[in-house]
Order: sequence, then structure tokens, then C-alpha cells
Amino acid sequence: MTASAARAAAPSALRRARDAVTPATRDLLARLDDTSAAIAAYHLGWTDAAGVPTHGGGGKAVRPALATLSAQAAGAPAQVGIPGAVAVELVHNFSLVHDDVMDGDTERRHRPTVWAVWGTTSAILTGDAMLALAQEVLLESPSPHKAAAARLLAEATRNLIRGQVLDVAFEQRDHVSLNECLDMVSGKTGALLKASSMIGAVLAGAPAEVVSALSTFGAELGIAFQLVDDLLGIWGDPATTGKPVFSDLRSRKKSLPVTYVLSQGGPAARELASWLAVPTPNGSSPGGEAEAADLIETAGGRQWAADEARRRIEVATQALHAVPMLAGPRAELVAIAQFIVEREA
Amino acid sequence: MTASAARAAAPSALRRARDAVTPATRDLLARLDDTSAAIAAYHLGWTDAAGVPTHGGGGKAVRPALATLSAQAAGAPAQVGIPGAVAVELVHNFSLVHDDVMDGDTERRHRPTVWAVWGTTSAILTGDAMLALAQEVLLESPSPHKAAAARLLAEATRNLIRGQVLDVAFEQRDHVSLNECLDMVSGKTGALLKASSMIGAVLAGAPAEVVSALSTFGAELGIAFQLVDDLLGIWGDPATTGKPVFSDLRSRKKSLPVTYVLSQGGPAARELASWLAVPTPNGSSPGGEAEAADLIETAGGRQWAADEARRRIEVATQALHAVPMLAGPRAELVAIAQFIVEREA
Repeated sequence: MTASAARAAAPSALRRARDAVTPATRDLLARLDDTSAAIAAYHLGWTDAAGVPTHGGGGKAVRPALATLSAQAAGAPAQVGIPGAVAVELVHNFSLVHDDVMDGDTERRHRPTVWAVWGTTSAILTGDAMLALAQEVLLESPSPHKAAAARLLAEATRNLIRGQVLDVAFEQRDHVSLNECLDMVSGKTGALLKASSMIGAVLAGAPAEVVSALSTFGAELGIAFQLVDDLLGIWGDPATTGKPVFSDLRSRKKSLPVTYVLSQGGPAARELASWLAVPTPNGSSPGGEAEAADLIETAGGRQWAADEARRRIEVATQALHAVPMLAGPRAELVAIAQFIVEREA
Repeated sequence: MTASAARAAAPSALRRARDAVTPATRDLLARLDDTSAAIAAYHLGWTDAAGVPTHGGGGKAVRPALATLSAQAAGAPAQVGIPGAVAVELVHNFSLVHDDVMDGDTERRHRPTVWAVWGTTSAILTGDAMLALAQEVLLESPSPHKAAAARLLAEATRNLIRGQVLDVAFEQRDHVSLNECLDMVSGKTGALLKASSMIGAVLAGAPAEVVSALSTFGAELGIAFQLVDDLLGIWGDPATTGKPVFSDLRSRKKSLPVTYVLSQGGPAARELASWLAVPTPNGSSPGGEAEAADLIETAGGRQWAADEARRRIEVATQALHAVPMLAGPRAELVAIAQFIVEREA
């Protein structure tokens, strides 16, 4: 598949996955009380806060696409991966709803967050309910391997939470090493992308070497995903990301490009550390974010992150090519990986 | 088994269950980051807030005892039920940690709650981690029926959350019918007690009629448990319950005895409704709670709740006697049910 064919293949795979998981997720949410179901539907981008159906919205469906493609890569119909796809998307959204409460974020995808509309209690409960439903849908799968898939999901959920715990702890610390930051990212972002890339194959009963290759693919993809997220958090266009300009610098986030520069030592690292030590000024007045962005770029943080993301996608791709796998789904998995490093939002 | 033998048997079964689940839970918590593991150990009553081991503390271990006894009732060793026992206790404690955040409660079992010591973010994350671990431990069981047990637990978790959603919603409403209140209780308290009473038998691969009898037992036990909880919330001795005198009346809780009196109509119902409509006075000054307690008692609310708890325990006991089951574990299950209605804290 050429680079331009890959660019075309990814959106199609994402759209297919979203079309497949939406009705299954809708049926599942009907098991909740009306309030929790309505809140979840809003969070997933299906309705506005008054419950009126909306068009578009919602996430990119990266995780469901990985889950269904991993079933297909193992030679099974996409259908086999659907319970896994629904489950990983529910776990992802459980974590977003709880994260927004913990971070006090009032906006996500250009809309008020769940807690900002319904309060903290409803956000906690709706997140909890989505996590319970994720296990339920997986354990109702007809696959004889559903217990292994559910165990994989529970372990990934634990690692995702561990990453979030570290992320919160790092905010309180002056110094975080690059390895600590990568470890945190491998949990917070990597754990679920890794599980998503494996879960369809696990449900399909794929051989261990195939599952292992998909595990490597997903773990590397997870780090690459966060590297690109962190690049967009500094240099992303607010018009496409929907976030304020320099948003991660404004919040003094110890993101990967920042941590890289700090880890290199020297005058740039000292200057950046001094700048980070000064709290964000109140209101919307700029606090030297543009200068900090330039400093990070001059010190090589931007280039490192971009190179590292591409390198990890390369490792991920090689892992898939090292084992027998259906060529079509493999190409689509690679296309999604490319899409992730090339995205602008 | 005589009534006095039953009274002696229950504490012994509870102690055995606690001794069996504690080391298994300890091993499991070691998978968490140090912070979450320390917070969970504190919440479970094993350490103080500084991490120093404490003696005693923790819950009554009712759910783990039901889980191990249900395996034994089905003819399996208690060991078969242990992953279920650990899992239901973790789900119970996940819900307590989150509930304390949502209710803003600063004390539980005579100690500060998790969020009161470590903040809301840590409480949410520790609760989430306990829920993930609950599924993990179950899915690592050697039982060929582990997927069915994990599905049962996920469904019970969803129903428990549904009960909590209703409980929160009822606080905002003027009128709640007795049936609505019983429905809420069957979720908030009943769902996990029901699952606890079944999960060991499910792991043991018990016949459907045995699992079904244990389901009835647990569901009835759940309602009885809440009826007694609500009686203690009004007439319990603060020295044994650890809660302030008339605590449920002070918070104007629409508990089962209150809802019963309101549902009967007439002058007592109208007087109680008027009293409930006046918010709790600030500070610690009494707001007529003693008079309200007398009113509920005179109108038959106390007697109804006590009779109803005993009736439900009777139904629960009959369900167990209607199917073939090992006599020893059955007698201990009944002893725990008796213990629950006779407890004073």
C-alpha cells in the first residue's frame, strides 16, 4: 500500500468500525437507568445535553478499528472482534469521563464535559457504569476465548489507571525523568491501545506469536500516539485541535517534548525548568508560552518527538510483518498507525 | 442448628472468610502503584493513614463468607470460591470509596474516608483500580466457569451502580413510593449480596437450580440487610453503630421505614412528610429527630421493617431448603442471614 493509499484506507477503516460499534453500544446502554444512558449518549457525541440526537461528534474510533482489524488479521470475520471493539471504546470513555472530573476540565471535543453539565456524582457513576458494561459485553461474546479477552481488558484497565495515577503524581513533582514519563505514557495511553490491538485476535483464538506481534504493535503505537498528542498540545492549530493555543504549555504539563529537553541538561534545560517553575498567570494573559515553545523547538524537543513517533510506528509495522497475518487487515492496521502520526487533531 | 448455635456459627464463618481473602487481596493489591495500594490497604482497615499496620478494622466480610460458602454448598472446596470472595469484596469496597466521594461523607468505620485523607482524585482512581482488580482475580481463577462468574459480577456491578443512581435521584425528590424504594435497595444493597451468594456455586459449576436458589437467598438477604441498616440508622445505638444518633433522620433520608409510613397515608404520613420537607438545621442543634422517630414508630414503620426483615430471611432460608445442597454450608449460610437481622452495628 502506498502512502496516499494508506491515508485513504485509515478513515474508511475508522468509519467502518464506528458504524459497527455504535448500534451494539446503543443496545448495551439501554441496560442502564435512563439518566446514565442519556449521559453516556451525550458523552459519546450522539446527543446534545437535552438528549436531542446530533450528527457527527464522538471520538475517532481508533480503538474499535484496531479491535476489529485484529480479529480480521487473525483470519476471523470483523464480527468476532465487535464485543472487543465495544468494550475498549467503553473503557476509553470511562477513563475520559473520570479524567475530566479529576482534571477539572470543562470542555472536551468543543462541548461541555459530563461533570460540567450533570455534576461530579453523575460523572463518577456514569464512568463506573461504562466500565461494568465493558466487561459485560465481552463476557457475552460467543467466543470460547472470551475469558482471556476479558482478563486482558481488566489488566489493561488497571495499567491505564496506573498511568493516570503517575500523571497526577508527576504534576506535583519538580523533576520527572524521560523514562518515568515514557512509563506513565505506556500506561495512560499505551495500555488500552495495546489491548485494543490484541483483543480481536484473542477473541479469534489467534496463535500466541500473532497476539504477541499485535501487542508490540499496539504498545509502540500507544507511545507514538502520545508523542503526536504532545506535539499537537504545543504546536497544534487551535482551529483543528479545538484546544487553546499552547494549551499544554499553559498548563505547564510535563509532556514528552518538554521532558526530553529537560533530560538533555544544559542551558536550554535550565531555562525551561525555570520557566516551568513559575505558575501559570491568572486569567488569559500570556505567560511566555510562545517563547517556551521556541525554546523547546530550538533545543530539539520537537524534532525528537516527531522522529521518535515515526521510529515507533516503524517498529510497530515491522512487528506485524514478522508474523503470518492476512495482508488486507495488516495493511489497514499500518494505515491507522500512519494516520495517527500524521493527524492534525 | 438452634438459634444460639447459629449465632455462634456466623462469626466463625465470617472470620474464616476474612482470613482466607486477606492474603489473596494483599497479593492482588501489590499489582497497583504504591500510592493506590497504600490507599486501598488503609480503606480495608489494614493500616492507618501513615501506612502503619493496624489490628482489627475492616468490614464484616459478609460477602466473602457468602461467596466461599456458596462454593461449599455446591460440594466444592472453599478454595474454589476464594477468587469470587476476593472479587465481591473488592467491588463492595470500590463502591464504598466512590460513594463516600459522592455523598461527601468524611467518616467510615470511625476513621476518615479515603477522599477526606487523600482527596477526590485519589479516591476515584483507587476505586477504579479495585473494580479492575475484581475482574482480574476472577478471570485468573482455574475454574472452567470463570467467564460465567465474571459476567455475573459485571452485571451485579451495573445493578449496584443503578441502585446508587436511584438513591441519589431520590434525594432530590419529594415523593418516593415504597416499591421504588425497594427497587433501589434491590440494586444498591441487593445486587452484590445476591451475586456473592451465587458466585462460589457458579465457579463450582453447580446445577442451575442450586444457583437459582442461592440467587433468591441473596436477593432476599439483600433487602433484609438494608431493612436492618435502616432500623439501625434511626434507632441504632451510636456507641455500637459508630454513627451519630438518629443519623438517617438528621440527613432526612427516605429510608425504608420512613417510606413505609409515608406510603400508608393518613395523618402520620402527612405529619412526617411536613417534617421531612424542612431542611436539617445547621450545626448540631436537634431538628425534631427524636419526635420524628417516635412518629415513625407509632405509625408502625419500625415494626413493619423488623417483621419484613424476618419474613425475607424466612423466604431466603426456604429457598435453600428447596434444593439439594450440603447441609453444613447451608446451615452456615442461614446462620449468616440470622446474624444480619440480629446485628446491632
